[in-house]
Amino acid sequence: MASIHAAETATATAPTRALADWIASVPGDAVDPRALRWARHCLMDWIGVTVAGAGDPLVAILLDEALADGGAGDIPLVGLSQTLRPSDAILVNGAAGHALDFDDVNRAMHGHPTVAVLPAVLTAAIVEGRSLEDALRSFVIGYEVACRVGDMTGDGHYDTGWHATATVGTFGAAAGVCHLLGLDAERTAHALGLATTLTSGLKSQFGTMGKPLHAGRAAQNGTKAARWAARGFVSRPDGLECVQGFWETQGPDAAPYDMNWVPGDRFLIERNLFKFHAACYMTHSSIEANRTLRARHDIDPVQVKKVTLKVSEGSLRMCNIPEPETGLQVKFSLRHTAALALAGRNTGAVDTFSDAVANEPDLIALRRRVEVQPVKIDRSEASKAEVIVELEDGRVLHEIHDVGVPATDLEDQEAKLSDKFATLVVPLLGATRAEALRRTALAATGADPRSLLAATQPG
Amino acid sequence: MASIHAAETATATAPTRALADWIASVPGDAVDPRALRWARHCLMDWIGVTVAGAGDPLVAILLDEALADGGAGDIPLVGLSQTLRPSDAILVNGAAGHALDFDDVNRAMHGHPTVAVLPAVLTAAIVEGRSLEDALRSFVIGYEVACRVGDMTGDGHYDTGWHATATVGTFGAAAGVCHLLGLDAERTAHALGLATTLTSGLKSQFGTMGKPLHAGRAAQNGTKAARWAARGFVSRPDGLECVQGFWETQGPDAAPYDMNWVPGDRFLIERNLFKFHAACYMTHSSIEANRTLRARHDIDPVQVKKVTLKVSEGSLRMCNIPEPETGLQVKFSLRHTAALALAGRNTGAVDTFSDAVANEPDLIALRRRVEVQPVKIDRSEASKAEVIVELEDGRVLHEIHDVGVPATDLEDQEAKLSDKFATLVVPLLGATRAEALRRTALAATGADPRSLLAATQPG
Repeated sequence: MASIHAAETATATAPTRALADWIASVPGDAVDPRALRWARHCLMDWIGVTVAGAGDPLVAILLDEALADGGAGDIPLVGLSQTLRPSDAILVNGAAGHALDFDDVNRAMHGHPTVAVLPAVLTAAIVEGRSLEDALRSFVIGYEVACRVGDMTGDGHYDTGWHATATVGTFGAAAGVCHLLGLDAERTAHALGLATTLTSGLKSQFGTMGKPLHAGRAAQNGTKAARWAARGFVSRPDGLECVQGFWETQGPDAAPYDMNWVPGDRFLIERNLFKFHAACYMTHSSIEANRTLRARHDIDPVQVKKVTLKVSEGSLRMCNIPEPETGLQVKFSLRHTAALALAGRNTGAVDTFSDAVANEPDLIALRRRVEVQPVKIDRSEASKAEVIVELEDGRVLHEIHDVGVPATDLEDQEAKLSDKFATLVVPLLGATRAEALRRTALAATGADPRSLLAATQPG
Repeated sequence: MASIHAAETATATAPTRALADWIASVPGDAVDPRALRWARHCLMDWIGVTVAGAGDPLVAILLDEALADGGAGDIPLVGLSQTLRPSDAILVNGAAGHALDFDDVNRAMHGHPTVAVLPAVLTAAIVEGRSLEDALRSFVIGYEVACRVGDMTGDGHYDTGWHATATVGTFGAAAGVCHLLGLDAERTAHALGLATTLTSGLKSQFGTMGKPLHAGRAAQNGTKAARWAARGFVSRPDGLECVQGFWETQGPDAAPYDMNWVPGDRFLIERNLFKFHAACYMTHSSIEANRTLRARHDIDPVQVKKVTLKVSEGSLRMCNIPEPETGLQVKFSLRHTAALALAGRNTGAVDTFSDAVANEPDLIALRRRVEVQPVKIDRSEASKAEVIVELEDGRVLHEIHDVGVPATDLEDQEAKLSDKFATLVVPLLGATRAEALRRTALAATGADPRSLLAATQPG
């Protein structure tokens, strides 16, 4: 995608230091109520996906190894009864949050910001005895840096094989923790320089436990970068742009610019995109369009003659399994997810994506009437889908949706996120505790981060 | 450099799995007495450089942060009185071992093998209650894998900006720990696949605390890869060669081959190169040649009219500071180190490289009679130096040395390593304890690794 700040490209002189200067100088109250409301949406959604992800086998592996290595600590885990020392808790909470791949994204970052940044900042706030609101303010700063670094780093990084959630996410976590610790610009620059040599994470791990691990590693490594720098670690304060630095080695089309945010500018957290369907992101726009058509025209699936999905060519490489046989394959099937949406199934529920659902005769019959048509569209609109539904009675219905456009109606977003949260959390914690958690996340004032995490523990 | 195993290039079908098969199937007793003797040399040298490196400010930073994060554990640190949990001890011992940049190298790996592999394997042996000899056998296996992966990965990796000690070292540590744990080939392949997504480390950190940190990170990350895989972590068992895997993203001229070691083949630890001078490696050959000439011809420095150093062009980019003003700069000055050698100074002592020594008038006068002549030589001989000394009495002396050629006289190597060990350790632990440590390292039979590390603690 084109840089969100192309006009700034020409002004890059010392981008690492410019980021550090900004992190060290931006006052906490620059994070205004609107940005904070977005941060609370991210927090609520992160708790939901992490409570639900905590049961993943990967999480048990990381937890067992942490206990064998260092024993318990005093930081609560989301959705689990054990407690771990800070760096282990960050790893486990980060990986659990990405286990379902149901957490939020930001196009500027080219990855998943909240799961890489929030576990780091929340844990730092617990360790430092700070409030949840302080944590959220530093989260907005770390989130911003993740997006700026991702935006400057460009498409080539991800295209080459790097998983930006892992790599770029490390800078966001480092920045958020530096801000919370109140490090000066020089120490912050060394933390960012350290982050350049701690980041890793390859896209070849997609489809394995490696992908969710990356989120936890970003949060954990970013935290170490900040904490080592706070203790005087000397790294490269120009680590992003220096010879054989991050961009020279991993950003073939990096386009650095100096951070020039001024008070009043909006934060990039306001371009956060939430996931409302437990399937591959590139199926979401056609699911939304089909849901809209079903609701608006009261469609009966047996009356559907033909469905045409016009989607970007790129999405076919990701999620075009025509005849899925398992629940996991359904997540990567444009045809089957379209059938689910037209049939009114809850695509926001993780257990909708079961092997049984993959093999239901009615859904199979419906998906076979779905045709996927690749179209050339600009990368900035790659997530857009156009859906045409032809009914037996001759009507031809038409809808376009793009989940890549951030919400403007925050009431509506909050309602949808609350539904998603309930779907994920109520089965595990019950309705009463889920609702209390939801309210605490949305009205962070006065809450403390340790109590919030502890309130997610089962039993 | 050309691959050490070029003949095998054509046979690569599944190199990650072939490595895993070998690690899982090679019996411990394949490590014969000769390889074990090399391993003991590596062990003794590692203890020496780590005891001396433990006082580095970087080490205090890592130690303090580990204690703040997780508290103490029960693994001894080399040269320090504290104990840490396994993963933290590995990090601190690994970083301390590389703090002086005085530890061994292997050209096939393109990096420093012992410091990346040995802290991991020794700690695993302590945790598992195994003998020092078992640890050394697994060390030889891990060392071999570091060299094989480095050799297959090729020159382009390092040239692009990756620090092979950090990146390639991770595979060596993972392999050594997998071998010690007795993992099967499938689990071992997943560990290597995990290592591909945990490795990091940029050469732009050279000259900062980042460089020694890399060694500790390689040992720590490799250990985690092995231990997570042992618990069932699913990664890419073809992680080195797969699309967007390690080689595609970071090995522009990688030339994979399948591991085809057979019993009786020598291990690559027998090509280990020790450092005997506390300066940049590319100054070592000319130091050795000058020492030889001084000893053989009883040279008086004031009688030296002119010295010519013929060295590879590449070494000029690393260590050709003509007029050093500080001890650190002396380490990177071909001229000043030549003067030190001709003057009979102990270039094996860390404190020889002081600011005072940089500014001694006699040495300055001598170094000004040294001329550095770059010559084009093949990369495989890049460390070679030819030295011509012209004396006032008309004699012209000539010597060639290449520290890149492994030793063949192990008695001589042991004597030189023992001198180096004493120089590093006696000032810190006293002569009696230093000698006891040296003897334990060289005659590992019966010793246990915990006692060995504990015997390095001060006080």
